[in-house]
Amino acid sequence: MTRHRIAVLPGDGIGREVMPEALKILGRIGDIFDMKFEFSPFDWSCETWLATGRMMPPDGMQRLSQHDAILLGAVGYPSVPDHISLWGMLIPIRRDFDQYVNLRPVRLLPGIPCPLAGRGPGDIDFWIVRENTEGEYSQIGGRFAEGSAAEGVAQTAIFTRRGTDRIMRYAFDLASRLDRPHVSSATKSNGLFHSMPYWDERFAKMAAEYPQVRTDVHHIDILAARFVMNPDRFDIVVGSNLFGDILSDLGPGVTGTIAVAPSANINPEKRFPSMFEPVHGSAPDIAGRNIANPIGQIWAASMMLDHLGESEAAALVLCAIECVTADPSAAVRTADIGGHASTSACGDAIVAAL
Amino acid sequence: MTRHRIAVLPGDGIGREVMPEALKILGRIGDIFDMKFEFSPFDWSCETWLATGRMMPPDGMQRLSQHDAILLGAVGYPSVPDHISLWGMLIPIRRDFDQYVNLRPVRLLPGIPCPLAGRGPGDIDFWIVRENTEGEYSQIGGRFAEGSAAEGVAQTAIFTRRGTDRIMRYAFDLASRLDRPHVSSATKSNGLFHSMPYWDERFAKMAAEYPQVRTDVHHIDILAARFVMNPDRFDIVVGSNLFGDILSDLGPGVTGTIAVAPSANINPEKRFPSMFEPVHGSAPDIAGRNIANPIGQIWAASMMLDHLGESEAAALVLCAIECVTADPSAAVRTADIGGHASTSACGDAIVAAL
Ligand SMILES: CC(C)[C@H](C(=O)O)[C@@H](O)C(=O)O
Ligand SMILES: CC(C)[C@H](C(=O)O)[C@@H](O)C(=O)O
Repeated sequence: MTRHRIAVLPGDGIGREVMPEALKILGRIGDIFDMKFEFSPFDWSCETWLATGRMMPPDGMQRLSQHDAILLGAVGYPSVPDHISLWGMLIPIRRDFDQYVNLRPVRLLPGIPCPLAGRGPGDIDFWIVRENTEGEYSQIGGRFAEGSAAEGVAQTAIFTRRGTDRIMRYAFDLASRLDRPHVSSATKSNGLFHSMPYWDERFAKMAAEYPQVRTDVHHIDILAARFVMNPDRFDIVVGSNLFGDILSDLGPGVTGTIAVAPSANINPEKRFPSMFEPVHGSAPDIAGRNIANPIGQIWAASMMLDHLGESEAAALVLCAIECVTADPSAAVRTADIGGHASTSACGDAIVAAL
Repeated sequence: MTRHRIAVLPGDGIGREVMPEALKILGRIGDIFDMKFEFSPFDWSCETWLATGRMMPPDGMQRLSQHDAILLGAVGYPSVPDHISLWGMLIPIRRDFDQYVNLRPVRLLPGIPCPLAGRGPGDIDFWIVRENTEGEYSQIGGRFAEGSAAEGVAQTAIFTRRGTDRIMRYAFDLASRLDRPHVSSATKSNGLFHSMPYWDERFAKMAAEYPQVRTDVHHIDILAARFVMNPDRFDIVVGSNLFGDILSDLGPGVTGTIAVAPSANINPEKRFPSMFEPVHGSAPDIAGRNIANPIGQIWAASMMLDHLGESEAAALVLCAIECVTADPSAAVRTADIGGHASTSACGDAIVAAL
């Protein structure tokens, strides 16, 4: 019997409500496939910060490192500035565990109403490969001339060759497994004078190593527009930390709801645990009411299974999700996708579908 | 008889094809309203760069400064790196003439097929107010450890209090003229550690000065998704140079085509000429075939008229544009909006509608 040690961090807000549903599904999967999950719950959150001034204890990373994977809910609390809550836990985990790939599917699920006219399941189905450890997300910089009329702030992005090449290589390797290998790059070399011309240069170099992969390059502005106008054009989109972030919310927006989208923070070499989370945030506006859609969290658990080598189990979970989204009954659909199911009722329906 | 001295820069690619249509419309407007346009053509473009190594002559800015406004087509040529063509002309004009407001409408015109299901004209109608002179677009930075494995590149964004406050003030002043004043701010303070928390701070300060204006703040990732899911929620969206750029291509994408969208680079104090251009680029793939949609350029001319104090004429041009987009005949619609009209046939139809 395979054992998987999973660090479970529900976090804040609806994270605490959707996480139990994912654990329910994993429990059932454990029975079906005869595998064992050891869940270690960690109650680190903005509450912890309010109480202790830290998002996680000093030995937090060390404790997480004892696990095969991390399942995260969502982090964020109205009374805690975002840049504090994130830089105190989420971003350090991504960086210290070298989870340099952020992999996010953009896929229209059956039964999810699509905001685009005339598009159905199958029409929109691609991956975003986002750089997850460097680039625009940076603490380099600060204020100058504070308090004077000349006041301002500087913010520096760093793109290393190592960081740029490895995310592009991941994208090209992923593409190489497709029937028609195709990678699109998100750039903005016409406005960002240093970083993005470098990005383009490395992309062109990498493309030359993969002659069988078709490539194209889009400025982020027109790329965003193309996600709406021609989402069927994309297979793998590789982008920087910021551009990947924007595109991987926009993509799920285009496919109807960000509540169902998952996000895998992967250390491909498996030197450190990878982390799986929904794309949505802690949604304080609807927290505590048992109405949040648990599918993003459950799909994240499916991606985790895949990463752990349990691809059959991963596929089964995704299949059960699709089974439930395809079901027109309002009793299994949460409010965001046109039903009136509670978070737990939706989770139960997915367990039943398994 | 009022005179307006207009610097005319067709630029590259389809810029050369759509500009004559805008001049045709302005000529007709001159007759109707008894105003006189003095057009000074400047043939500065990537061709100029290829021939001379400069996008414009050394006294270019001085020559432009003799005009009341600048009408620009599009700049960019396949054999000239984007960051060279742009930083050699477009961006210096925006900066040296202190055109710190980039104002772009997002409006669904009658007859333009909308990619969103169930949305019609009137449902999407708002403004993007983009900071246009500082922020992420910057030449500060460069490569380090070039040629070694540690190679990389740094890129620094600068946000000044002056630059941030003046764009926000413009947005709030614009909002104050609405029936229900409302400003949304684009931020990413959870990832960009220094710049965006500062942006948020200045936004909150400015909001306090305008208690009658309703405000909300969105991270750029979810904001992009909301442009697709709830475009009817927005009235005025204020964003940094980069975020404003992305949103003002995405917005027109959501309303069907970026080919019709205009962009006004405004120096509100009128110390320098303002510049008006379409949002689209030089589109080398379709250039030279007389099939480009001239409406973006013509709508830009309408915004120019408005800036020159000719609001009645501006409104008439916009009205004529809507008249033509509402016309189902394929003979007046260019291919991008489902017809087979040539660039000039579409321009002629707008002249006729005047
Ligand atoms: C051409 C490019 C530098 C420019 C920009 O990003 O500002 C364009 O996309 C625009 O929006 O006017
Ligand atoms: C919470 C925030 C820092 C985070 C990010 O931008 O990376 C989130 O938006 C995401 O995409 O996971």
